[in-house]
Amino acid sequence: MAATQSSDVLAELGAFLAIPSVSVEPVHAPDMRRAAAWVADELAWANGRVVETEGHPLVLAEWLGRPGASTILVYGHYDVQPAGDEREWETPPFEPSVRDGRIYARGATDDKGPVVVAVQTARRLLDATGALPLNVRFLIEGEEEIGSPSLPGFLTANRELFADVSVVVSADGAMWRPDEPSVAVAAKGLVAFDLVVEGAASDLHSGRHGGAVQNPNHALAQLVASLHADDGSVSVAGFYDDVEPLSVADRAALARIPFDDESYRASIGAPELHGEPGWSTLERLWTRPTLEVNELRGGGPFTVIPRVARAHLTSRLVPAQRPAAIVEALVAHVARHAPPGVSVRVETQPGAVPAYAIGADHPAVDAAVRALRHAYPDAEPLLVRIGGTLPAAAMFEELLGLKTLLFSFSTSDEQLHAPNEFFRLSRIDEGIAAWSELWRLLA
Amino acid sequence: MAATQSSDVLAELGAFLAIPSVSVEPVHAPDMRRAAAWVADELAWANGRVVETEGHPLVLAEWLGRPGASTILVYGHYDVQPAGDEREWETPPFEPSVRDGRIYARGATDDKGPVVVAVQTARRLLDATGALPLNVRFLIEGEEEIGSPSLPGFLTANRELFADVSVVVSADGAMWRPDEPSVAVAAKGLVAFDLVVEGAASDLHSGRHGGAVQNPNHALAQLVASLHADDGSVSVAGFYDDVEPLSVADRAALARIPFDDESYRASIGAPELHGEPGWSTLERLWTRPTLEVNELRGGGPFTVIPRVARAHLTSRLVPAQRPAAIVEALVAHVARHAPPGVSVRVETQPGAVPAYAIGADHPAVDAAVRALRHAYPDAEPLLVRIGGTLPAAAMFEELLGLKTLLFSFSTSDEQLHAPNEFFRLSRIDEGIAAWSELWRLLA
Repeated sequence: MAATQSSDVLAELGAFLAIPSVSVEPVHAPDMRRAAAWVADELAWANGRVVETEGHPLVLAEWLGRPGASTILVYGHYDVQPAGDEREWETPPFEPSVRDGRIYARGATDDKGPVVVAVQTARRLLDATGALPLNVRFLIEGEEEIGSPSLPGFLTANRELFADVSVVVSADGAMWRPDEPSVAVAAKGLVAFDLVVEGAASDLHSGRHGGAVQNPNHALAQLVASLHADDGSVSVAGFYDDVEPLSVADRAALARIPFDDESYRASIGAPELHGEPGWSTLERLWTRPTLEVNELRGGGPFTVIPRVARAHLTSRLVPAQRPAAIVEALVAHVARHAPPGVSVRVETQPGAVPAYAIGADHPAVDAAVRALRHAYPDAEPLLVRIGGTLPAAAMFEELLGLKTLLFSFSTSDEQLHAPNEFFRLSRIDEGIAAWSELWRLLA
Repeated sequence: MAATQSSDVLAELGAFLAIPSVSVEPVHAPDMRRAAAWVADELAWANGRVVETEGHPLVLAEWLGRPGASTILVYGHYDVQPAGDEREWETPPFEPSVRDGRIYARGATDDKGPVVVAVQTARRLLDATGALPLNVRFLIEGEEEIGSPSLPGFLTANRELFADVSVVVSADGAMWRPDEPSVAVAAKGLVAFDLVVEGAASDLHSGRHGGAVQNPNHALAQLVASLHADDGSVSVAGFYDDVEPLSVADRAALARIPFDDESYRASIGAPELHGEPGWSTLERLWTRPTLEVNELRGGGPFTVIPRVARAHLTSRLVPAQRPAAIVEALVAHVARHAPPGVSVRVETQPGAVPAYAIGADHPAVDAAVRALRHAYPDAEPLLVRIGGTLPAAAMFEELLGLKTLLFSFSTSDEQLHAPNEFFRLSRIDEGIAAWSELWRLLA
């Protein structure tokens, strides 16, 4: 069933990627079940099984053949983002295509490739030595791309399943650059809001009523403009209150990370970089909380004063910031700045996630760095932080008291959530080498 | 062919309304031809004929049986707005339904009902007396709802057809209230822009890039917020430069028009009225130029920093304001207020229309007031202004030097451009009485 040669691993990954397991689209519910069954089958040697949750099922498995050795939990997910506009894909998103040392498909790097790496690590070790160096449990969920809504309930109701686990190792996450092996030691939290501005009872003809009423689009723009100062810093009172100061040592460590503003700017094609003064770009990206308006929406391209205008906002949090306090600060800001002539409200979205961090001195981080040195002897691994959010890591910490090591062989340039997502084939053997060494060190 | 009894008029109107002549939707091109042919057939007694243009055809006709008497041009349109969301209609938009003294259908009041009133006026007069009191030409176009793009070219190429015309009488427009007969003596102009703000080369993950770049949604909101002061007045330098002062006599005349702020506010369901201080609500509606953001659009309800954010704006102009000067003022404002980190541009939409006005002392206005007194002996007609735009009136003036009398039996509460559009059946006989008297007076 499971492959141990690289070419076989690729065939396995291809079969996995051909299943359109899009968790957010109800039409794909049968594909979700197929993908879960595929993963369980792949883990049959470890009692792999599909377990129901309130939402999409998850897959559990365990190999506990080393009594007395420590036990880790390997986390990953089998669900993927929607493909988006298929015309933007060079090859169809669910017909995996190998080109130039890469495999292209939706989910290739987020997170099916990295999941296959972890599973195949176990297969190779078992084939070679008949055993793993430590006990391994697997939890591969199907709701990561929709915020893991069923995971907290499942973990709470099944704590005893994880009582023997010492640390979680996540196959989800991403190395920051293809040529610099890295371990992420922090991820930002996330809280999402909608700002809703309502005016008259229905859309109004802008000729017949213009000049007599407040336009919800104008009011929304005023509110949104009030959220940031011209220099890009957040103007919401209290927003930065709980942010811990960056120590001199931390700033020095960040300054040692190779980062060139101009190459970064060119890589994203922005006219110029922009943000809070007093911080380097990397400090802003990794250590400063943000408040971004992801969507503005009101009216249409015709002569109307719309009834309603909306903005969707997300705030990325850093450690010590409490999602509830950020919600409170935003609600108070909006109340204070609400323009006349309209009604304004904040709708907080469920599923707020605090920031996550693991100490640079945590034994698992040390093991990860050594495992990366083993797989990449020519490059010194970097400790990095990511601006993305890992709900599962925050949940494992809050509900099970477990730290999560982010040990993914995805790379952040591999078009995650975008058209033409891919996974570098070289990461398969590198990843298996590193995972094997990691398990040996954690044992 | 043509009806002369009210019940027959209603049947004719029903047949006209059943044709879905939606000019903006290419799928309705055959319906546009059917509607044009229907109108030409209705005007067969006046040599009614379908005439090609660069876009949808228009219908011409003429009865010139009074040599020596003056000649007028009756203007109207056979095209209609799209139905919008059909679920919001109580009866289907193209299945005319008579209820409570009203006929419901898309186009009932804009502009098929008023066109039928004008045409049937001629039929009744011919049936009763064998002649009309003056010479009448008809021009019923099929592109009013899309800004009359082919009309200027047609008028320019066919000036000689209109050499004998002394005044245009438009069946398009609207009385302002059902219980107060009115003649509109001014309509606002219109100029439309898009504001486009571009950031990076593609949408960015808000976690991976938030804090490093300007968000086009934020920049757009800042720009939009800069367009108006908190009190609702337009902050664009030069915007009010060409606005002619409102004379003491004009203000006094406006103050005599019955208008209650609270009833108006309640009628549109706005939380409160809002706009330039120093002017009454009616002065703002009728005599002040406006700048409205009809649409805001950027990103989506997920964790993205969008590549681009856009606003669609329209400005309603008053007499003496030049569309080109308003474009220039807006472009300069945007250049002055462009936030850093993004590129910003103004895209001016084609088809700007200056404001239109006809003197309250114009003989046609005097005739209209007297004709309305004849049809509505219990109410003194009001001279009103409208915030909407009448491109055709501006074109007749600019290209043919002709003034247009707005003499419509539509009423502004009849759901123009909205679901459940209707036309009051009482307007048919009232309208025919008034049109007959108007022609007699203009003869």
